[in-house]
Amino acid sequence: MSTTIPKTQRAALVVEHGKDLVIKDDHPVVQPSELKPGECLVKLDVTGVCHSDLNTKLGNWAWNPPLPRVPGHEGVGKVVAVGEGTMNPDVKVGDRVGLKWIAETCLRCEMCRRNEESMCPNQKTHGYRVDGTLQEYCVSWVDHVTLIPDSISSEDACSILCAGLTVWKALKQSNTIPGNWVVVPGAGGGLGHLAVQYANYMGLRVLAIDSGEEKKQLCFKLGAEKFIDFKETQDLVQDVKAATDGLGPHAAIVTAASGKAYEQAVWYLRDRGTLVAVGMPPKDLFNVPIVVIVAKALNIIGSAIGTRQDAIEAVDIAARGKVKCHYDVDKLNSVNSIFDAMHAGKLVGRVIVKY
Amino acid sequence: MSTTIPKTQRAALVVEHGKDLVIKDDHPVVQPSELKPGECLVKLDVTGVCHSDLNTKLGNWAWNPPLPRVPGHEGVGKVVAVGEGTMNPDVKVGDRVGLKWIAETCLRCEMCRRNEESMCPNQKTHGYRVDGTLQEYCVSWVDHVTLIPDSISSEDACSILCAGLTVWKALKQSNTIPGNWVVVPGAGGGLGHLAVQYANYMGLRVLAIDSGEEKKQLCFKLGAEKFIDFKETQDLVQDVKAATDGLGPHAAIVTAASGKAYEQAVWYLRDRGTLVAVGMPPKDLFNVPIVVIVAKALNIIGSAIGTRQDAIEAVDIAARGKVKCHYDVDKLNSVNSIFDAMHAGKLVGRVIVKY
Amino acid sequence: MSTTIPKTQRAALVVEHGKDLVIKDDHPVVQPSELKPGECLVKLDVTGVCHSDLNTKLGNWAWNPPLPRVPGHEGVGKVVAVGEGTMNPDVKVGDRVGLKWIAETCLRCEMCRRNEESMCPNQKTHGYRVDGTLQEYCVSWVDHVTLIPDSISSEDACSILCAGLTVWKALKQSNTIPGNWVVVPGAGGGLGHLAVQYANYMGLRVLAIDSGEEKKQLCFKLGAEKFIDFKETQDLVQDVKAATDGLGPHAAIVTAASGKAYEQAVWYLRDRGTLVAVGMPPKDLFNVPIVVIVAKALNIIGSAIGTRQDAIEAVDIAARGKVKCHYDVDKLNSVNSIFDAMHAGKLVGRVIVKY
Amino acid sequence: MSTTIPKTQRAALVVEHGKDLVIKDDHPVVQPSELKPGECLVKLDVTGVCHSDLNTKLGNWAWNPPLPRVPGHEGVGKVVAVGEGTMNPDVKVGDRVGLKWIAETCLRCEMCRRNEESMCPNQKTHGYRVDGTLQEYCVSWVDHVTLIPDSISSEDACSILCAGLTVWKALKQSNTIPGNWVVVPGAGGGLGHLAVQYANYMGLRVLAIDSGEEKKQLCFKLGAEKFIDFKETQDLVQDVKAATDGLGPHAAIVTAASGKAYEQAVWYLRDRGTLVAVGMPPKDLFNVPIVVIVAKALNIIGSAIGTRQDAIEAVDIAARGKVKCHYDVDKLNSVNSIFDAMHAGKLVGRVIVKY
Repeated sequence: MSTTIPKTQRAALVVEHGKDLVIKDDHPVVQPSELKPGECLVKLDVTGVCHSDLNTKLGNWAWNPPLPRVPGHEGVGKVVAVGEGTMNPDVKVGDRVGLKWIAETCLRCEMCRRNEESMCPNQKTHGYRVDGTLQEYCVSWVDHVTLIPDSISSEDACSILCAGLTVWKALKQSNTIPGNWVVVPGAGGGLGHLAVQYANYMGLRVLAIDSGEEKKQLCFKLGAEKFIDFKETQDLVQDVKAATDGLGPHAAIVTAASGKAYEQAVWYLRDRGTLVAVGMPPKDLFNVPIVVIVAKALNIIGSAIGTRQDAIEAVDIAARGKVKCHYDVDKLNSVNSIFDAMHAGKLVGRVIVKY
Repeated sequence: MSTTIPKTQRAALVVEHGKDLVIKDDHPVVQPSELKPGECLVKLDVTGVCHSDLNTKLGNWAWNPPLPRVPGHEGVGKVVAVGEGTMNPDVKVGDRVGLKWIAETCLRCEMCRRNEESMCPNQKTHGYRVDGTLQEYCVSWVDHVTLIPDSISSEDACSILCAGLTVWKALKQSNTIPGNWVVVPGAGGGLGHLAVQYANYMGLRVLAIDSGEEKKQLCFKLGAEKFIDFKETQDLVQDVKAATDGLGPHAAIVTAASGKAYEQAVWYLRDRGTLVAVGMPPKDLFNVPIVVIVAKALNIIGSAIGTRQDAIEAVDIAARGKVKCHYDVDKLNSVNSIFDAMHAGKLVGRVIVKY
Repeated sequence: MSTTIPKTQRAALVVEHGKDLVIKDDHPVVQPSELKPGECLVKLDVTGVCHSDLNTKLGNWAWNPPLPRVPGHEGVGKVVAVGEGTMNPDVKVGDRVGLKWIAETCLRCEMCRRNEESMCPNQKTHGYRVDGTLQEYCVSWVDHVTLIPDSISSEDACSILCAGLTVWKALKQSNTIPGNWVVVPGAGGGLGHLAVQYANYMGLRVLAIDSGEEKKQLCFKLGAEKFIDFKETQDLVQDVKAATDGLGPHAAIVTAASGKAYEQAVWYLRDRGTLVAVGMPPKDLFNVPIVVIVAKALNIIGSAIGTRQDAIEAVDIAARGKVKCHYDVDKLNSVNSIFDAMHAGKLVGRVIVKY
Repeated sequence: MSTTIPKTQRAALVVEHGKDLVIKDDHPVVQPSELKPGECLVKLDVTGVCHSDLNTKLGNWAWNPPLPRVPGHEGVGKVVAVGEGTMNPDVKVGDRVGLKWIAETCLRCEMCRRNEESMCPNQKTHGYRVDGTLQEYCVSWVDHVTLIPDSISSEDACSILCAGLTVWKALKQSNTIPGNWVVVPGAGGGLGHLAVQYANYMGLRVLAIDSGEEKKQLCFKLGAEKFIDFKETQDLVQDVKAATDGLGPHAAIVTAASGKAYEQAVWYLRDRGTLVAVGMPPKDLFNVPIVVIVAKALNIIGSAIGTRQDAIEAVDIAARGKVKCHYDVDKLNSVNSIFDAMHAGKLVGRVIVKY
């Protein structure tokens, strides 16, 4: 393929925690000759902007990456080069692929061997340990990129690779069977609105929690059976129980980065129910009486991203039209205003950047 | 069978929360003619005294039973009468049976139908919702008593029916495979020393945590591979990790009624590890950063008692000599001093009362 | 309730294996005073006619019941009496309930304790070990009847209690996740057309196998994604593989009572795939090379009926409109012609008898 | 490391199916410079001789490898060279490693991604698709060799890598819990005597089936609780049931390459029991009535070898002294007489070749 690869590109970088990202037009592009075996260079069509990128910008987590760093970890684009000496023949120049948070894992440590790639201590992560997708050309790893089927657009696919994957994996760990009730707090948000759809596809009955008429209508349209407006309810726990046979839901997918959402879930869950912990409030403790966890015999499952196989499954379901991300399209130049809106909690759905 | 059933008996009763139990010699015995269909009368050989009985005495839990109440829920004895109209032919006068916390469940609610008898909302509980085993003659239910094999003495069997059952069920829910590491905090205690043995029987590698040379030697004798004295370690979390491949154990069975034991377990567990929550500190919160549960992708499983089948399994393993409870034998008259010693944390192993 | 219970009724009886059933108008009705504790008398609205009833008539199985016997095990009707001394308060006179193959189990044997009620050696079975639903008034057991929600008609519910329950349970044991391929041989038949719908509800991709344009259109309407006409294909195994990613399906639900359907499934299944064995050809062997089972590392799971909980789930899904049985309505007097048509393989869908 | 690597070596080759292997003293050694990235050269201490090697010699399976071929797939030795450009730093020159049947898998196909490496369609297999361990220097793959702990000798480790791994994986798939009964037909054989030990380590109760006083005593010594001599029993199925609570065992690990052993297992298994299919009789069908599989609701699980993680676990258990292979030590020159004895069924335990 005769793609000409430029020497420089437009990119957005975190240069100092808490400060606006710096947009550069002359950020260097890694050249094909610089790629190591197993690496590929991807010319991105689009990238999503995720709440984790905001945390990266703010330096919110305990394990901050070195700066400057290009954030972004939901990208879709075309492979324009593959490192010489690469042994995996499945990913070729011209293939459309997705890049996700997990950029590479070793595939040989205990966690990789046990099919828990997300926990690999040797992992590389896009937009965090290595540069990510808020640039036009991004280096990734052929063993870990996700081939994107023709039946889905890059725009539709990109947020599936992080938000979609995350909720799909969470639902797979929810110990539910079709016909069970699942609660999705924050159901109108970036992860939540995808969780509603995957849950619906799995035959789960969805009780959506969020606020406002617009989100309520969205949730119903996406397949939720019931909706509770958390700003209107007098007693969320009792209302959730009442709405779910009086016994409470079999599972809750807590994507909200809110200690309160965790607490409430413990109280409204059915006995033997499962709380899938996804949202990561930087500082909140899990302030629940231990005796309640034991007496209700609950399952609390931490769920972090997912494997290559989980990603393929999540994309496949979306590519067959069963799940559709709601997003607005913007430009890389707007990245700081996107982060500001996200920080202020003003975003409805997902924002993606188109190159 | 020509057993004569007396009209009165010796019994110990909680009359007022926090006060000493009252020992009565003329407590009425339920007479065979008073038994309803499905009930049986058991002349007890022995009963264990459990920490939950102390909580009953103290009124520590949110859902206190009406008083007076005869506590006790680890009894073994002979069936001396079965209620007329009982349809279950498997339990007959003369059979030796075990009585446990769960005295009866409805066997038809959702929890019973899902094989979660312990969560049955219609359950009766010995020594709590109905009178228990701190009396010579106790009413129980034929569908729920546990037949005791001849190869085990009543003394050896009685604490298996609560302490043994509880840790066996907890270990069954620990997501481990043989060869994995399990940590048992409080390994020298009533539940802990049984957990060490069941874990060992399952092929798990046991790291015991407790304090003092006597408990250390006991733990090694019972099959623990390593021991950490929590009073001597400078950094329990690091020491546990170092002792278990550097990665931490695959599971922790937290039987200690201590918020601190829970917190530590979250920190020392291996990624994707399982904390089985058994101990019920009446007031402690689960003070762990939510972000740690997610980032380590932990499983936290509340485990409450177990089913009839779990009880049969736990007793069978003990009856085949694989697990042996360590206990001192005392008299019913000593029950208040037993509770005092338990409250002061001075008991080593289990105390059982012989009639 | 002032229902008058007649002394006699219309009923269909197997009097001699292989001969037509005898229709009697003066078959005695068990009177309320004759009911034992735990029993109830149900005035049936409808009953399904199942292939197992045909086997009962023909004496096809190794364990034949004593004759005469009233067959039938998919009935829905109203409780008109409950035996005196019954302790379960959940089923009352006036309740609409479903009767299924499993009429009663002991709820205390190992199989019952392990939540495998279908394997209870003490079970009673409607239309086999005890009289069934091809009569207007049928005795059943309150612990085992299935309460029918108002949102589903008796006609729609009755075949769910056997055919629906059977395929729902089979699908629950198919080791699949949403997005996987499942093959349903005989997809246009009584069990098959329900399997297509339950599978679809669970998010499985269905490849239906059957013959003829009518069944093809039915399968597509019920949610099948692909269809193979077994009379038109040159090589069923290759065609199934080709239709399912080239690797074969993740599971096959073999409801057909045909050794050939079993053989083919072993060959077309994906490596590590699951064959759920439901259909019971009276004499066929499982003529598959052992080496194929090992080399493909297959799972072959025998699935027999289901539990009370499975039945409640299957009915709930149907009552919410996710699954709908296709049936023709007939009269009890036609029972012999229904059996003849069934024996000749001429039935399309299910036939139910309305009283 | 200054190991000098010779140009030629002693090796045993299958040159023609069914004929004796040819022993060559001047078989070429792959030189370090010829190794591709990811490959390593291992100087073997020992190799086991497995029944699968006999099948390779005889050309018994449908998918024969090209000849000549060096068989052997249970080797232990030292790494003497690693291919230039290898990216995995965990395996270094000087490390002692084990070689097994699976020499390499792609780690990226669906089966690898689903943690089913044994089913990888791109796999290389030692002694079959690539040359194996019946030579002094063998090429293998760093991502797939098994590091051998210091606490186990090469002799003790080598058969764990095939026979041990196979039965460990089979037992992991047996759906059993500690205290359950497992039957091991051929318990005195190469795989069987290891299955007895792993089962015992897991807390399973073992009923061993084999013949003769020597094997009987061996089985008891290795932890079997009961033994049935298949040559002395009048009715194996009834005797197995009688020995296992009257209900039959919860699982059978059929390692025997015998259709009859499979048939018997189906008949003696407990309802809902699991037959793990390991033995591969080249031509036998699974001649069992389908109706029995359904009526007993059995699980029949094909189990083929195991993953890298399974191998590490199996070796770890042996290295901690819980499992010990019984073997005779011989020389490479004797390989043809070893195969003859194996073919005649005269081998007791395993034979290993020491270099």
